[in-house]
Amino acid sequence: MTWTLAARTARMNPSVIREILKLTEQPGVLSLAGGLPSPDSFPAEAVRAAAEKVLRDTPREALQYAASEGYGPLREWVAGQLRAQGQRVEAGQVLITTGSQQGLDLVGKLLIDTDSVVAVETPTYLGALQAFAPFEPQFAAMACDDDGPTTAAVAEARGARFAYLLPNFQNPTGRVMGEARRDALVAAAQSTGLPLVEDNPYGELWFDAPPPAPLAARWPEGTIYLGSFSKVLAPGLRLGYVVAPPALIPKLLQAKQAADLHSPGYNQRVVHEVVKDGLLDHHLPRVRARYAAQRDAMAVALRAHLPAATEWSTPQGGMFFWLRLPRGLDAMALLPRAVAAGVAYVPGAPFFAGEPDARSLRLSFVTLAPAQIEQAVAALGRVLHEALAALPRDAELLRRAA
Amino acid sequence: MTWTLAARTARMNPSVIREILKLTEQPGVLSLAGGLPSPDSFPAEAVRAAAEKVLRDTPREALQYAASEGYGPLREWVAGQLRAQGQRVEAGQVLITTGSQQGLDLVGKLLIDTDSVVAVETPTYLGALQAFAPFEPQFAAMACDDDGPTTAAVAEARGARFAYLLPNFQNPTGRVMGEARRDALVAAAQSTGLPLVEDNPYGELWFDAPPPAPLAARWPEGTIYLGSFSKVLAPGLRLGYVVAPPALIPKLLQAKQAADLHSPGYNQRVVHEVVKDGLLDHHLPRVRARYAAQRDAMAVALRAHLPAATEWSTPQGGMFFWLRLPRGLDAMALLPRAVAAGVAYVPGAPFFAGEPDARSLRLSFVTLAPAQIEQAVAALGRVLHEALAALPRDAELLRRAA
Repeated sequence: MTWTLAARTARMNPSVIREILKLTEQPGVLSLAGGLPSPDSFPAEAVRAAAEKVLRDTPREALQYAASEGYGPLREWVAGQLRAQGQRVEAGQVLITTGSQQGLDLVGKLLIDTDSVVAVETPTYLGALQAFAPFEPQFAAMACDDDGPTTAAVAEARGARFAYLLPNFQNPTGRVMGEARRDALVAAAQSTGLPLVEDNPYGELWFDAPPPAPLAARWPEGTIYLGSFSKVLAPGLRLGYVVAPPALIPKLLQAKQAADLHSPGYNQRVVHEVVKDGLLDHHLPRVRARYAAQRDAMAVALRAHLPAATEWSTPQGGMFFWLRLPRGLDAMALLPRAVAAGVAYVPGAPFFAGEPDARSLRLSFVTLAPAQIEQAVAALGRVLHEALAALPRDAELLRRAA
Repeated sequence: MTWTLAARTARMNPSVIREILKLTEQPGVLSLAGGLPSPDSFPAEAVRAAAEKVLRDTPREALQYAASEGYGPLREWVAGQLRAQGQRVEAGQVLITTGSQQGLDLVGKLLIDTDSVVAVETPTYLGALQAFAPFEPQFAAMACDDDGPTTAAVAEARGARFAYLLPNFQNPTGRVMGEARRDALVAAAQSTGLPLVEDNPYGELWFDAPPPAPLAARWPEGTIYLGSFSKVLAPGLRLGYVVAPPALIPKLLQAKQAADLHSPGYNQRVVHEVVKDGLLDHHLPRVRARYAAQRDAMAVALRAHLPAATEWSTPQGGMFFWLRLPRGLDAMALLPRAVAAGVAYVPGAPFFAGEPDARSLRLSFVTLAPAQIEQAVAALGRVLHEALAALPRDAELLRRAA
């Protein structure tokens, strides 16, 4: 082979989730694996009308090259939304990206040198680990509790290039960081000069009450904030945004321009057309109600079907339940049996930057309808009960073999 | 400031062209600067009909997350088109990207380590220099003639990670590499094991005859090939593609997934809908005729208005004339005077990885109508004649001051 690959490619690994999703695409498998929003939640008719209008009224502009920063009115709209949530943001700080995944790539390009320390939650979003890895950081896994990273862990992360945080309905755990922890964590970060990268794809998907104000509202000059249209509108349009302190904008913009010149202007105009007159004000309550009902269905099914020693918390928003299986069970090892029984999930191990918890797994409640959720969780329960029952037998076999 | 930037950001510079384009956006300025296709060439009605169909027939699929490789039928279509041009390509080798600019970013991520040598043409596409620069290569500028890089220069590039080549109607020079040079260059690259990255955004924009078969058709296992829908359909959809030898596909795909998960599935379906029944067969001849007429208008205007000592060749396709001003004139220094006179261009200097040629500049003939081209070139001619006339006076002033 003539080709010499860059050293960083050794840090790029086949996505476990990608391989798992292939496995779960077999017919007859009910998938609780993917983090896919329900297609029933897409405002398809509004998108269709907006697409029609944009191509009728401004085809020459929508189909032409456009500014790397993004479409001005959409940047203004994002800034206005964030100000309404308590952030101090001007449109000039908003960079429209090709999904918020690209925001992670640009942040990595901007801030990570080889062996830079990047502090992450335990566990954390796998896609962020994948986005940062090509820039060859050392990941530091922060100790976490039900509120997210502990204040002590954040203080100990002093000297890291940044701490990557998902305060709202985190992927994969579903946890939300409370008001007090946000204050304490930001105070600790400020006192040690630890920059924050706050990723908020799920914040609007709350069920009972909105989450506390973002970290960026507490420390705007020390926080890069990432948002997405994927969960509130539709992922297939691939639009997200990065909000950065003004001093970082020029370099971020250069990185964006080098990466793909700009995100599709057509899509940006369509999304602006969809949101500008307040569609989200009535669309989001419907999405929340749908997801809350699915969350409830899964909570009932889990209580009904799972072995008593399985641990979980009921999420207050977002898309995921995070489970810890009874001692002796391994979520990765059990997956083929689950798929054979007609249900798929994502083992938790790939979400850990440090030592993985082999007993953990993630279930998405937003893709399947409540009746299918009941059926899928019942199948998972049977697999787990069988595996538990087999445990002593395996131990007996081992004793005989020894 | 809390933030520590990665070392690579020192290699990311404000885009000169970006700054120039701002300058040229002043009202009353006729711009020959941007590489923007004429909006009159966009098949807006076909895009509108396709967008309507995709959102009516497959909204759930078009708006959902999708495969990182791209939309299967579009990958098949691309592979079929390239096979028709003599390449041996399977759909599995085609990765759909967010514009071909993203292809350049992914190639850089995959192949460039700090201080890797990357061989480039003299001059070369500025956007490629910008895409590769964050990966901190050493650029080696290959000696070029009217056919592109000389065979000797390619042989001397032995040991580079790859040679980046634009054989068809190159940006910025407009030159096309002939059949014999393609053969000789590929033979030299094969003999020294020098991989090739072939960028072909303009290949379909030929006026009299199609260019020779691509380098990738001559050495598929040693060539990564980049294509784009920006010049044949519309840039605002942001879709391009990378075709790579099968051995490179897994890592390329991991890089793509980390960068933005996937390019917008909606856009991919719309483009497939537009092209699948042969729209390009009648659309491209119209685009070629339009651009050829604009090229002719500029050729006539240049002969009529520019100082005799100005050098250029008439391009046989693509979007650009490349000019060399008479001795003593500096294209960058003259730009403010040109803009004041109502015409803008791009100075050639930023396109050089090595020693820049201060006398060079690039004119795009595809954005303005023929009458405006005549007017713009006439204005440019006046500026150049005045500057030439002033040269002896300046020299006289310098002598007096000494």
